[in-house]
Amino acid sequence: MRSTTPLSWARRLVEATATLKRPIGVFDSGLGGLTVLRELRRLLPNEDFIYLGDTARLPYGAKSRRIVQRYSMEVAEFLIQHNAKQIVIACNTATAHAEAVLREAFDVPVIGVIEPGVRALLQQTRNGRIGVIGTRSTIKSAAYTAAIKRQAPDLQVFARACPLFVPLVEEGWIDKRITRLVIQEYLSELHREEVDTIVLGCTHYPLLKTTIQQEFPDFTLIDSSFEVARAVQAAVDPSPTGDKPGASQAVVYLTDITDQMNHLETLLTGMNIDRLEETRL
Amino acid sequence: MRSTTPLSWARRLVEATATLKRPIGVFDSGLGGLTVLRELRRLLPNEDFIYLGDTARLPYGAKSRRIVQRYSMEVAEFLIQHNAKQIVIACNTATAHAEAVLREAFDVPVIGVIEPGVRALLQQTRNGRIGVIGTRSTIKSAAYTAAIKRQAPDLQVFARACPLFVPLVEEGWIDKRITRLVIQEYLSELHREEVDTIVLGCTHYPLLKTTIQQEFPDFTLIDSSFEVARAVQAAVDPSPTGDKPGASQAVVYLTDITDQMNHLETLLTGMNIDRLEETRL
Repeated sequence: MRSTTPLSWARRLVEATATLKRPIGVFDSGLGGLTVLRELRRLLPNEDFIYLGDTARLPYGAKSRRIVQRYSMEVAEFLIQHNAKQIVIACNTATAHAEAVLREAFDVPVIGVIEPGVRALLQQTRNGRIGVIGTRSTIKSAAYTAAIKRQAPDLQVFARACPLFVPLVEEGWIDKRITRLVIQEYLSELHREEVDTIVLGCTHYPLLKTTIQQEFPDFTLIDSSFEVARAVQAAVDPSPTGDKPGASQAVVYLTDITDQMNHLETLLTGMNIDRLEETRL
Repeated sequence: MRSTTPLSWARRLVEATATLKRPIGVFDSGLGGLTVLRELRRLLPNEDFIYLGDTARLPYGAKSRRIVQRYSMEVAEFLIQHNAKQIVIACNTATAHAEAVLREAFDVPVIGVIEPGVRALLQQTRNGRIGVIGTRSTIKSAAYTAAIKRQAPDLQVFARACPLFVPLVEEGWIDKRITRLVIQEYLSELHREEVDTIVLGCTHYPLLKTTIQQEFPDFTLIDSSFEVARAVQAAVDPSPTGDKPGASQAVVYLTDITDQMNHLETLLTGMNIDRLEETRL
């Protein structure tokens, strides 16, 4: 009998629980938000994190406002039950539909990807002609356009849903001819309209950034996953440095784990995740 | 006060319930199975139907076997609660993972799309070199290959996942250059392997049939939605013709209804649906 393995595993678990600070909760409909988690861990090496990817019900991007709100509430409740001191919505669709609802429902600070993305957009544009790209649901919500208009009513906003970008990324077709044709199909109108800055309003899109930039070198592309991480860094109530500074924890929960998640390993590489677990909401 | 409207509505509802025979239950992860429902209504004009599309959790095609089984059980229970006398799984992924489980769980007959598709495949092939295309999850399950090998162990089966076909159909890009390139990318290897007959193992794929046929005129394409409807017709315990022959009913439930379901209206056109309703499982 190999009694040492379960024992040492149990000991590690007890130690882990004992040193757990209140984590920052991060969620997305799937794995795309792991890019936000990666950036957050880099910027906040002393914080603990808990991530939930709702892979059993993804994608949120073609679903109704009501369904996205219901799912976001269920996910946020899971994070709160796990003692999250802050909720980061690492999903554009969930931010577009549910940020206000979550803010209303919970006492902890809630930060979505849209406001930070818009702030960066306003700093970068030179001609005031702005592009927003995202899922059908995000674009339909007009959440980006509303956020931009609140801060700069005179800017011209051109919004475009790009529903094929996510399946192209998931297929791993990053710089194929097909991908370039799809990019041309979706973005050439923004180019004709002389848009100079575009926010990538979906956590999958940064993976196409280089290819988009090759097709349209004029565009300045804003990566909202980077911007939201900086916003969290600025707003977070810092954890006290414990006995082991830098020994921060990150636990990743998914509502479904399949062996066809080609991107999961790549996304987790070098991120030093303490645990990956399947959970049911 | 307009009291006539609710009253006449209530009367119609009572009449509808009174004349309701036990319906045939049909389900899919989304709207694709409506092509099966259409074919069923054409072949069985005297039967009542209840359809459930699990649009709040679609697609099933990239999810794990366990999650697809859980969702399929929940949907089938809904149909049984609505008095279904038979269950038609109008979804390849759900058939691949959950047909056996549903058969075990319920007393009513359960018919999936795979067996009827395979029977047609075996009738059509001339050289015994067969192609199967579908979602990642359907192909990974190898359910088609297993069903083919059971009936004809000597056939050569070439399976290929085509995950971009569904988003292309949903985008309405049916015969664009991009679509033709994707078709070439996915199917040219089957052509090199001298496959002569291919089963379209996903209810969305028949919408690409013409374009696929233009790119590869040699292929014989099998439409499983047509085949499953014929199998149900052969197996069904016919409803007694009531007072009003031909006055059959069809009710469609969806777990999420959005105004971005571009295909819904087209799919329902000419099908004479009695009710379209949102429901929560």
